[in-house]
Amino acid sequence: MTSARGGIDLGGTKIQAAIVDDAHDVLGQSRHETPTTGGPQDVIEAMAAALEEAASQAGVQPATLAGVGVGSPGYVDERAGTVASARNLPNWEGAVPVGELLSQRIGAPVHLGNDVQVATDAEAEIGAGRPYRSLIGVFWGTGVGGGLILDGRPWLGRRSAGEIGHMVVKVDGAQCPCGRRGCMEAYAGRAAMEARARKLVERGAKTDLFKIMQERGRTRLTSGVWARALKRGDKLAVELVDRAVEALGAGIASAVNLLDVEAVIIGGGLGIRLGDPFAQRIAAAMQPHLFADDTPPAVHVAALGDLGGAIGAALLAGKRVEQPVG
Amino acid sequence: MTSARGGIDLGGTKIQAAIVDDAHDVLGQSRHETPTTGGPQDVIEAMAAALEEAASQAGVQPATLAGVGVGSPGYVDERAGTVASARNLPNWEGAVPVGELLSQRIGAPVHLGNDVQVATDAEAEIGAGRPYRSLIGVFWGTGVGGGLILDGRPWLGRRSAGEIGHMVVKVDGAQCPCGRRGCMEAYAGRAAMEARARKLVERGAKTDLFKIMQERGRTRLTSGVWARALKRGDKLAVELVDRAVEALGAGIASAVNLLDVEAVIIGGGLGIRLGDPFAQRIAAAMQPHLFADDTPPAVHVAALGDLGGAIGAALLAGKRVEQPVG
Repeated sequence: MTSARGGIDLGGTKIQAAIVDDAHDVLGQSRHETPTTGGPQDVIEAMAAALEEAASQAGVQPATLAGVGVGSPGYVDERAGTVASARNLPNWEGAVPVGELLSQRIGAPVHLGNDVQVATDAEAEIGAGRPYRSLIGVFWGTGVGGGLILDGRPWLGRRSAGEIGHMVVKVDGAQCPCGRRGCMEAYAGRAAMEARARKLVERGAKTDLFKIMQERGRTRLTSGVWARALKRGDKLAVELVDRAVEALGAGIASAVNLLDVEAVIIGGGLGIRLGDPFAQRIAAAMQPHLFADDTPPAVHVAALGDLGGAIGAALLAGKRVEQPVG
Repeated sequence: MTSARGGIDLGGTKIQAAIVDDAHDVLGQSRHETPTTGGPQDVIEAMAAALEEAASQAGVQPATLAGVGVGSPGYVDERAGTVASARNLPNWEGAVPVGELLSQRIGAPVHLGNDVQVATDAEAEIGAGRPYRSLIGVFWGTGVGGGLILDGRPWLGRRSAGEIGHMVVKVDGAQCPCGRRGCMEAYAGRAAMEARARKLVERGAKTDLFKIMQERGRTRLTSGVWARALKRGDKLAVELVDRAVEALGAGIASAVNLLDVEAVIIGGGLGIRLGDPFAQRIAAAMQPHLFADDTPPAVHVAALGDLGGAIGAALLAGKRVEQPVG
């Protein structure tokens, strides 16, 4: 038995695993693609494979880990160890007992949490949010997710809190991938941004975005593709990112007007990739909408970077193991 | 010394006072106009007069009250007992020591709180919010204020939380009385609705709103004026209230997407006056924007009605007195 813990960040496109020690130092890590076909058992298998690779790098046996945490999308029931409504995972029907299946597969106790909340908790405990008792984590990636820390504790509401990406910034506005209209994510989510870019290209707009995508061997406009296009001054990319920043500014400011938190931590694929200059642009875009505009919250980039989700999941495992039973 | 407590709801247009007993029954009440000229001392005097009238009705001496709570607009420092930035009160410069001044004037201990939060706390403790551990109070009146109860406790943030009226529902939208653009209050606040009605009338729109206002001897479109115009089927009034309900639906749904509270309590002048049918219309307007749309929050009208602010303030006094010193 080791004191090392495993963390798995289960995403719609990738699975990241990390092994961390008591000081939260990363002893091993790996990144696998999320299966797009098959079913839950294939996803469990890919998670186990990612964890085994990270454990091997760390020189530990998975079965000897003190615990393995999983940050999952969808509707996570932490007590039951199940995940439902994970619409980005293949053939995911009903509440899948991820905890039990993965635990049987790797031989260590498994603890589940919501992916975004787990990453927010990690930033609050050991990342950019350490100095603060209240913060909002904003994960700017394919979608825009959010996590809340209020008075030093995660706020989950009845279970679905943190959907900052679906705050309405424009009544009757753009169509969101969720099907609703005018959500912040409809302007700022990478999926929505790509859909808009494709539509504008169909209408004759010029851009290097898809050329860069092909050069880099991608099938999607990844965060790296957007970053390169911005660096080249690609007009369409600049316009769409400006539009995203404006929506993020309005939506995050709305959340701050409601909650008056001390800090906003910007993470997610695009947030991490574009980094501090864009976090500061988001802060500037928030300013005109802030009601208490003389006391804006601090705005930081997530300090744990891309691995924050996996490290946060490991943290979750540690926490649960330390809790007295009953 | 009596166990009765006083509560004062200090508003920009009226001051309401109530005397309540331990069971929160109202023993006396009064309503005075807020001075629009003079300065803080005149406001203190009007508060004292309102309290004295309510106390006389209740048959108690103000100086024998166990405590007097004040729900105040502006920036309230509860510990220091001061109120600053109360832009609707006359010549209100710097931090006015309302607690000390009023306490000297009436001879009973005074406790301050934010007006909207105090009314929210009252709904949570003895009103429509009693069954819930988490809720948002939405006060739909001249402006749109908000108060939060999370896990059974008020959430104030760094002090400015609850500004739900200034959540952005339309980027680059209508001008808000606060000077910003696209706030929920820019569509739903009674002051903004009146400004819009006047502008549309100038442009040739027809409405009975201002005729009703004059018939009722008012200089403003009060909640009663709006209610009568709606009853008559006045087209402009119907349109502007529809627009307000749409904005409330989007803004409150955004808040629920972020916080996933159990309930929303609709109070304020318009909220109370228009009552349950409109609370249910707001609930219906929220529905298309709710991310977890299979678990909408309960939506209720504030149960304490117009007197909720004063009763809530009295509750504040009681609470503080019961707290051990230090």
